[in-house]
Amino acid sequence: MMAHETAHVGYVGDKEQIIKRLKRAEGQVRGLQRMVEDDTYCIDILTQVSAATKALETVALQLLDDHLAHCVADAVAQGGAAADEKVREASAAIARLVRS
Amino acid sequence: MMAHETAHVGYVGDKEQIIKRLKRAEGQVRGLQRMVEDDTYCIDILTQVSAATKALETVALQLLDDHLAHCVADAVAQGGAAADEKVREASAAIARLVRS
Amino acid sequence: MMAHETAHVGYVGDKEQIIKRLKRAEGQVRGLQRMVEDDTYCIDILTQVSAATKALETVALQLLDDHLAHCVADAVAQGGAAADEKVREASAAIARLVRS
Amino acid sequence: MMAHETAHVGYVGDKEQIIKRLKRAEGQVRGLQRMVEDDTYCIDILTQVSAATKALETVALQLLDDHLAHCVADAVAQGGAAADEKVREASAAIARLVRS
Repeated sequence: MMAHETAHVGYVGDKEQIIKRLKRAEGQVRGLQRMVEDDTYCIDILTQVSAATKALETVALQLLDDHLAHCVADAVAQGGAAADEKVREASAAIARLVRS
Repeated sequence: MMAHETAHVGYVGDKEQIIKRLKRAEGQVRGLQRMVEDDTYCIDILTQVSAATKALETVALQLLDDHLAHCVADAVAQGGAAADEKVREASAAIARLVRS
Repeated sequence: MMAHETAHVGYVGDKEQIIKRLKRAEGQVRGLQRMVEDDTYCIDILTQVSAATKALETVALQLLDDHLAHCVADAVAQGGAAADEKVREASAAIARLVRS
Repeated sequence: MMAHETAHVGYVGDKEQIIKRLKRAEGQVRGLQRMVEDDTYCIDILTQVSAATKALETVALQLLDDHLAHCVADAVAQGGAAADEKVREASAAIARLVRS
């Protein structure tokens, strides 16, 4: 039970940093709303949308990194069908990221 | 002056819809923070990050669409160096989007 | 007729450079096949796949740039429904690029 | 030595399919050159560029999947610094893919 708890939150050591990054991304998205309200020039808004998208992408890559280094690694070390399943699941998540 | 005002906010007709979409994206990013706080499984967070990224991408494409249909089109109809500049600027924004 | 001919090949002035870039991309994809045949390490192949993808992306952005600067600009200068259709078509192509 | 050989080509079981896909991608890139030579309409070329990019992306995801399932899994099963290094290397490759 505890093993599972530890295993499934690969990002436990980076929690604070991830939340900080998400708060900044939230601020960027709120800033976008103000820009639209204020009739900011389209291109300037687009630049800010790209910045917010990149911030989320950085969070995704950090989560994935932690997931491979902990959850997938732990499952693989234990072996068996659960390990294969973890690898398949990670691959599917990577495919969604690459295609989004 | 008025012409410029009208020209530079290509998204004026979609303002309400864009803000609605940004509010939803903001909600998704706030939801992500809760998921991290609650030790939600990494893969489930990643799925939600992809959803938020896609929401921002949709906003970007809508802004760009409006920008081409109004700002760029108006500048091109007037011709001259300003038209070339608008096209170059739009191309650079598209490149940033494609590469982000 | 001639106007249409000129209009629809926005990239006419960059043709040689585009073909050169595509030939290089073709060489990269052929190089990838050799790497796979030779059992090259996965990560090194992935680096080369990213390079080939970026080469194609650069071609796409150049074509789009030329398309906006010539085909779309010409249609917009003439105005009417054809202009709107060109802008819509360009927006759809941009959306495909951003999402691919 | 043999173990290393087997370990580093995670895609060994999919070699034929990957080469087939790369040959198809090569054909698409050659087709693009013909389209440009023949003054094909920009938007139709762009559609084909997106198809070629997607074909390469599929190859990348397959290579990555095999790499995680074999090379990374084997290294993790053996443990130690080599395992950490393999995970870091895979994460960096994923980041390149997501950002390309």
